[in-house]
Amino acid sequence: MFQAKIRSDALKGIVNIISTLVDEAKLNVSPEGIGLKAVDPAHVAMVELDVKKAAFESYLADDTQIGLDLDKIKEVLRLTASGDIIEMEQDEERGRLIVRVGNITRRMNMVDTSSMSDPKVPQLSLPVSVDVSISEIQKGIRAAESVSDHIALTADAEGFELSCEGDTDSVNLRLDKAKLVGLTVSEKARSLFPLDYFSNLVKAIPSDTVVKINLGNDYPVKIHFDLAEGNTSVGYLLAPRIESD
Amino acid sequence: MFQAKIRSDALKGIVNIISTLVDEAKLNVSPEGIGLKAVDPAHVAMVELDVKKAAFESYLADDTQIGLDLDKIKEVLRLTASGDIIEMEQDEERGRLIVRVGNITRRMNMVDTSSMSDPKVPQLSLPVSVDVSISEIQKGIRAAESVSDHIALTADAEGFELSCEGDTDSVNLRLDKAKLVGLTVSEKARSLFPLDYFSNLVKAIPSDTVVKINLGNDYPVKIHFDLAEGNTSVGYLLAPRIESD
Amino acid sequence: MFQAKIRSDALKGIVNIISTLVDEAKLNVSPEGIGLKAVDPAHVAMVELDVKKAAFESYLADDTQIGLDLDKIKEVLRLTASGDIIEMEQDEERGRLIVRVGNITRRMNMVDTSSMSDPKVPQLSLPVSVDVSISEIQKGIRAAESVSDHIALTADAEGFELSCEGDTDSVNLRLDKAKLVGLTVSEKARSLFPLDYFSNLVKAIPSDTVVKINLGNDYPVKIHFDLAEGNTSVGYLLAPRIESD
Repeated sequence: MFQAKIRSDALKGIVNIISTLVDEAKLNVSPEGIGLKAVDPAHVAMVELDVKKAAFESYLADDTQIGLDLDKIKEVLRLTASGDIIEMEQDEERGRLIVRVGNITRRMNMVDTSSMSDPKVPQLSLPVSVDVSISEIQKGIRAAESVSDHIALTADAEGFELSCEGDTDSVNLRLDKAKLVGLTVSEKARSLFPLDYFSNLVKAIPSDTVVKINLGNDYPVKIHFDLAEGNTSVGYLLAPRIESD
Repeated sequence: MFQAKIRSDALKGIVNIISTLVDEAKLNVSPEGIGLKAVDPAHVAMVELDVKKAAFESYLADDTQIGLDLDKIKEVLRLTASGDIIEMEQDEERGRLIVRVGNITRRMNMVDTSSMSDPKVPQLSLPVSVDVSISEIQKGIRAAESVSDHIALTADAEGFELSCEGDTDSVNLRLDKAKLVGLTVSEKARSLFPLDYFSNLVKAIPSDTVVKINLGNDYPVKIHFDLAEGNTSVGYLLAPRIESD
Repeated sequence: MFQAKIRSDALKGIVNIISTLVDEAKLNVSPEGIGLKAVDPAHVAMVELDVKKAAFESYLADDTQIGLDLDKIKEVLRLTASGDIIEMEQDEERGRLIVRVGNITRRMNMVDTSSMSDPKVPQLSLPVSVDVSISEIQKGIRAAESVSDHIALTADAEGFELSCEGDTDSVNLRLDKAKLVGLTVSEKARSLFPLDYFSNLVKAIPSDTVVKINLGNDYPVKIHFDLAEGNTSVGYLLAPRIESD
């Protein structure tokens, strides 16, 4: 059983993040909230969400699983204005999710979750932790896209840097320690990442969010942040590219 | 002879409706105003407009016919801002319509109307009459488009409903009697319609308009409304689809 | 050596004009400012810019040449908001231009200017001079585009006119002397021009600009105007089309 109401903005924020990696998602529903783990088809990135009961306007659920087609949820979101409430209800008998916005009711077949397994999230100990307003990075990302298809993240005791090297041009975003919310560096670190994954995530994060970036040397990057006024925590893991030069 | 001035908003409202069905239109001009009847090439829908002299800022005409290329009128409308006045004048000698906006003059060949006959508007007696703000329906239409290519309109004594059934999903817009401006039901009615026609019309109607919908059982739907502050009346007739289930 | 700061709006205004004709440009840099002459690949139009030192927030330069890829400059401009300052610096050793906006640094290879010669600007004595707000012409241009691919400019003692003749339609923009800022006609003049060149230029000029148009009979048109609060002067020359009728 699953019955919940949520503000459309809150649902949109969550869906925007997940859909950077997958088109369909398995929600692990419990009385306390919803958990989700997803990996993209190329196994380059992984996202883990924990949506607390308090993220919803009302929430009533047993332990159950819901297979969501994210494009259909986006279609519903497109019908909503900023303050709207979205009602969701599981119709277990018919395998459907019933979604209501105002006078509109949409019934959608749920996706079969039997073949969707939860990925294992690796435990990593990374020497760098950067707390930064995502808006600072969003500017740099747009500059990088015209130059290369991968991006290097670098951190030392003085600051954090994004850099792209193309054939003829390069782009650099330097954030000195004073521009950061926090910086802990036990060891200088640099890793290279596919720009499209990084860019899609960065653009999907609301611009007033502070994110925590954990970085190593040729190691995956871990990005943590909260959505929905702190009631949803997101962890994102992106595999590095090995530098060829 | 035909010489008239009209606010660009008023002309835009009229052209938007007609061009959901046809690219060219024959205007039946008289000293009292302009009448128009048009049927789409597939003969699925029909529109009938009565634009009174009072819809114009100034109006001077004999009985005459004008064949309009609606795309050219739209090009002129795109040059105008909301308060602008459009001047139109028939140049009978050269078979042209002269259109002026500010310092710009456009002369356009009129379309030959000799092969354009006025369709007969059937007289229908329909058991249901629904008065509803079109904005309520505009929301439902957008929800329906992702699910199916036809839409069922249903009415009973309690309310009015739009519903779409797709292969896996369904969408429903329920408007209880209290949500309607008026509802008269002498007999429960339900008919199915092609969604594209219905949707194109609904979107072309200014969102602050109240429309009257007359409905029957597997019968055409008749939609009536006014434009241009009541000085233009529009009747629209859409043929039903026979349900295959 | 070249080191300068400029408001993004000022740089955008300049780049918009040049890029109607070329993708790459050679800047002739001197201690007093920057000069540029460019001709389009089809040799139909020519532009000449004189950007004074005062157009910059700060400016320090020797005599040098800089080859710019305008698309790359546009990419940088897209990252800026209206009040932003763009810093530019020549890295002579590596043949690069370093461009900074806020925390972002972009290094771009300069274009080789050795094969880019400065076109000779012909001295023309034209019998008509029209001073007109470009916004008046911008409206007419949009009307003309749906009708023809060339445009006639005509002037006599009473006013200035743009006209387009298509197969079935015509568009006319008449600006009487009272609508103009200035009009000097020693001899009636009319010339025909390719609409795309004329239109691209007219649209690239900020709408609050007054331009001076010099016109003759089947002669090139010369268009002069200032940008960047008078600190950049632009001259544009467009070859006529010979009328075939």
